[in-house]
Amino acid sequence: MAEEKRLIMLPGPTNVPDRVMRAMMKPIINHRGPEFEALHDNITQNLKYVFQTKQDAFVLTSSGTGAIECAVGNILNPGDKVIIPTFGFFTERLKEKIVRHGGKPIEIPVNWDNAPTAQQIEQAIKKEKKVKAVAIVYNETSTGVTVRDLPQIGKTTHENNVLLMVDAVSILGGDHLPVDKWNIDLCVAGSQKCLACPPGVAVISVSEKAWETIEKTPTRPYYFDLVSIRDYASKGATPFTPALPLFYALDEALKIIREEGLQNRIKRHQTCAKAFYAAFEAINLQPYPSAKVRSNTVIAVKVPSGVDGGRVRQATKDRYRVEISGGLGKIRELIFRIGCMGIISEAETLATIGALENALNDLNYKVKIGAGVEAARKIFHRR
Amino acid sequence: MAEEKRLIMLPGPTNVPDRVMRAMMKPIINHRGPEFEALHDNITQNLKYVFQTKQDAFVLTSSGTGAIECAVGNILNPGDKVIIPTFGFFTERLKEKIVRHGGKPIEIPVNWDNAPTAQQIEQAIKKEKKVKAVAIVYNETSTGVTVRDLPQIGKTTHENNVLLMVDAVSILGGDHLPVDKWNIDLCVAGSQKCLACPPGVAVISVSEKAWETIEKTPTRPYYFDLVSIRDYASKGATPFTPALPLFYALDEALKIIREEGLQNRIKRHQTCAKAFYAAFEAINLQPYPSAKVRSNTVIAVKVPSGVDGGRVRQATKDRYRVEISGGLGKIRELIFRIGCMGIISEAETLATIGALENALNDLNYKVKIGAGVEAARKIFHRR
Repeated sequence: MAEEKRLIMLPGPTNVPDRVMRAMMKPIINHRGPEFEALHDNITQNLKYVFQTKQDAFVLTSSGTGAIECAVGNILNPGDKVIIPTFGFFTERLKEKIVRHGGKPIEIPVNWDNAPTAQQIEQAIKKEKKVKAVAIVYNETSTGVTVRDLPQIGKTTHENNVLLMVDAVSILGGDHLPVDKWNIDLCVAGSQKCLACPPGVAVISVSEKAWETIEKTPTRPYYFDLVSIRDYASKGATPFTPALPLFYALDEALKIIREEGLQNRIKRHQTCAKAFYAAFEAINLQPYPSAKVRSNTVIAVKVPSGVDGGRVRQATKDRYRVEISGGLGKIRELIFRIGCMGIISEAETLATIGALENALNDLNYKVKIGAGVEAARKIFHRR
Repeated sequence: MAEEKRLIMLPGPTNVPDRVMRAMMKPIINHRGPEFEALHDNITQNLKYVFQTKQDAFVLTSSGTGAIECAVGNILNPGDKVIIPTFGFFTERLKEKIVRHGGKPIEIPVNWDNAPTAQQIEQAIKKEKKVKAVAIVYNETSTGVTVRDLPQIGKTTHENNVLLMVDAVSILGGDHLPVDKWNIDLCVAGSQKCLACPPGVAVISVSEKAWETIEKTPTRPYYFDLVSIRDYASKGATPFTPALPLFYALDEALKIIREEGLQNRIKRHQTCAKAFYAAFEAINLQPYPSAKVRSNTVIAVKVPSGVDGGRVRQATKDRYRVEISGGLGKIRELIFRIGCMGIISEAETLATIGALENALNDLNYKVKIGAGVEAARKIFHRR
């Protein structure tokens, strides 16, 4: 790798293919003209493929957080009850957004190393009267936990006529998420995670059922007004000036996903995740989440006792040119987090495991050196 | 010009220098690390130079409209009175935003070819009790009108202890706007206009006086919460993932402004605007705005009677590779609008006038061909 380049193995942003970077250099065009319409239509079509939806999908000029505020702000009227399981930094953030928009969060606290179950959601819906929505963070970027019960949760919300809003910021395009099949009404993701695009735009899907509520929400935020966004989208446009270079980049990134095939892409993420977990088992690094809820896109492992996580991360970055992350919030110093996202393959996986093994050894963490890389290699061999 | 390239003479987006485009190709980095801090600090410093402020300035990952919603949402509590002169499409839009955020707009309707005066604003402040803010669109992008009384309006709001919020989306960096000197409390602009950057980020300045109100506004929007943005900015960061490639681009665009010097840049815009107005006088195209309120950044002229404006614009674009714009809202077909923004110089000015002259002649508008270009040339000669 060239001196100035590093592998970005963060839980977002992640490495971006050259093709996608180069797409940003396309000419500035009028966003109220036929060239933009064609770009907009291509993006929309491929976005629906990635969301696996026949309903609506849009791009927003904002980060993923903006898109979540869009989802929340378009369905909540003051006093509306929203069931929100909390099990990490981003679920806490989502709860705060519900409060800001006048909603009443019905919290289901879950240990940060675990995920809520469909049973818990169903019980909460039955107990509370008139629940407007259930808000689920499908993949808790702060803990590496994936809510594996999401399909069952969708069944429950569907049967009880409650909206299901899903924060899929760090998982769309990297793991299973068939929006229509799983009855998800609003699904949000960022560009800079599994879609392997630079940061700066976000995507959102909207179901027929969600529209019924959105149209009856007069306090919709102006910038994130989905009714206005739908009106303009029907004419191949956005209500306000779009982040054109990032629309070009997203268009290219989505084309790459279509070329690879969504299911192949998901399988690739799964295989690399399996290699990470096998490697960490081999060098006695414990995954932070419980076994059944481990993410395939954000790999979180505990910092071994007696090891200074910050120094290890500094060493992987400075000496081995691989950038990984620590924790967030109350578990900041307790874990390492690695993005297994986007263009992730054998090369990035092995390089990251190797860098972490070497850095740990440099800092006197005694483990058989090479055992991690070797365990990962075997996974790729078996594929 | 290469076949596929066109001059983008729209009132935004505008032509972007190659240096700025190339900056977007810099490596993806962690937005929670020292490299981003350095980038953030450079941008902030140069942004304060452009705003001519010693107070606060921030970049937002959104369009200019998002930044205006940020300004409005951070100061308005339900029922707050805001004086809003309306004289075009974007002032109407701003009024709608005030309503969405629970504010009570006190409208001062002005003819679309004119601008509000300081006297009108002062009278409205005195008549209404407890006005929270005055909201002014400094440059109405839809009509080519600039509010030349803005310094006096700032004096009035200052003396009456009312906040002054300014939409400078299409003028910051292209005309005079010393934020501190003119007592502007919140000033908003887009990246894709006079700053000559691609679209996708927006900028905002915030005064000490504005902070007093912002801190007492509990309904601040989550994504656009200025208190949170200030907290993160003090550590060289943004609360949510920034549009990194556009931060790189803005950084480069601001460096270019510093190199040229803000006053030189403003003078360049003024000279080109003067050339446009001289050219249009020479070929009998009437400016849409009254003489005293003509913009130096958005040149709006009336479509001559009997001429099909849409066909003329199509011809400048297809035959002469210069893209200009029509009107917006109720004056869509009545005017041409030309962006005199960013990298605007003799070359773009003469090419645009020439293209418009040629297209008008192609479509049988009888005028002495070449008179417009010749009048513009003289202006540049006199410089």
